[in-house]
Amino acid sequence: MSEIKFLDPLTKHLEKLPGVGKKTAQRYAYHIIEKMTEEEVDEFAKELVQIKSTLTHCTICGVLSNQSVCEICHSTYRDHTQIMVVKDTKDVFAIEKTGQYNGVYHVLKGLISPLEGIGPDDLNIDSLEKRIDENVKEVILATSFTPSGETTALYLEKILKKDHIVVSRIGYGLPAGGDIEYVDELTLKRAIDSRVNSKS
Amino acid sequence: MSEIKFLDPLTKHLEKLPGVGKKTAQRYAYHIIEKMTEEEVDEFAKELVQIKSTLTHCTICGVLSNQSVCEICHSTYRDHTQIMVVKDTKDVFAIEKTGQYNGVYHVLKGLISPLEGIGPDDLNIDSLEKRIDENVKEVILATSFTPSGETTALYLEKILKKDHIVVSRIGYGLPAGGDIEYVDELTLKRAIDSRVNSKS
Repeated sequence: MSEIKFLDPLTKHLEKLPGVGKKTAQRYAYHIIEKMTEEEVDEFAKELVQIKSTLTHCTICGVLSNQSVCEICHSTYRDHTQIMVVKDTKDVFAIEKTGQYNGVYHVLKGLISPLEGIGPDDLNIDSLEKRIDENVKEVILATSFTPSGETTALYLEKILKKDHIVVSRIGYGLPAGGDIEYVDELTLKRAIDSRVNSKS
Repeated sequence: MSEIKFLDPLTKHLEKLPGVGKKTAQRYAYHIIEKMTEEEVDEFAKELVQIKSTLTHCTICGVLSNQSVCEICHSTYRDHTQIMVVKDTKDVFAIEKTGQYNGVYHVLKGLISPLEGIGPDDLNIDSLEKRIDENVKEVILATSFTPSGETTALYLEKILKKDHIVVSRIGYGLPAGGDIEYVDELTLKRAIDSRVNSKS
């Protein structure tokens, strides 16, 4: 009896959570069994099943939502001529938090990554092309400054250019509070490349 | 839509896990919804409810077990004249891992802590006293080197002494690999106090 073997079936599930290894999963399992009441665990289990069955993705932009058309796509206060393309729902929430963007979004559900075998067909790109009609003026590519992010942005630039809309990319460069001395070469190179002339 | 509000009901439950704050809980919830299949989540929920309803505590020593009498208390290969008193089930597993102990255990389910309002009556102490009959030769107190651990050990020493059995405490001192230079004063003091004469 040197290991908590009978915790294994639950531990196995908890290990699937991001950043959770065997030790942490065992700690969680132990806590669930020893410290939570039966009612708490029942409610937890119910919530798991329920949230999974009620949440869906917006049929227009692909963001995680509890409606078939999300709040943003549904809103008449948002600028539907601007579409910002992001990797996933978390990015939408991060940008919404800034309060600096009033257009709509398109969630790719991933990035092109040949190494992981993810090609354009595996992403939400078809639906993006279909969304682009005469009403759309600008597509802002907001993918990360990583090999996959760059590849995806380049691919989208190429296929969207022909639609005679403005395709832009968000700015890359020095982060807030970033000291030049400590910034990596790539970021620095990018910051120099994307320099903007000061108003004289 | 600047926050993942519809994740809140699930996040609330995940936040109850040890060391999990709001951010981590949201990350877990997001992962459950976006990356796990419906089947996986269903099984996870089922396992939660099932493990909670099948696991119980050994009626003799109080360790977490899937039987009413645990493997250790049930075993005829273990030395039932030696009882090691520990705080909780995790301590039992830790000691079992060493393979250095062949007696049985008694799980207190906590430590005496006046500050937290935990007194002797809130712990599994009554059942320990009842277990101590003429067959028991030694009770080893294996509580931690903390104020609560010390208080609990002193209390148990006092109430068990009258039973004319040997009451011992596990050794405290320098941990393996611990450099004297970096060890705290309390541990060092304890290590000096509990010095053992070298065999000449």
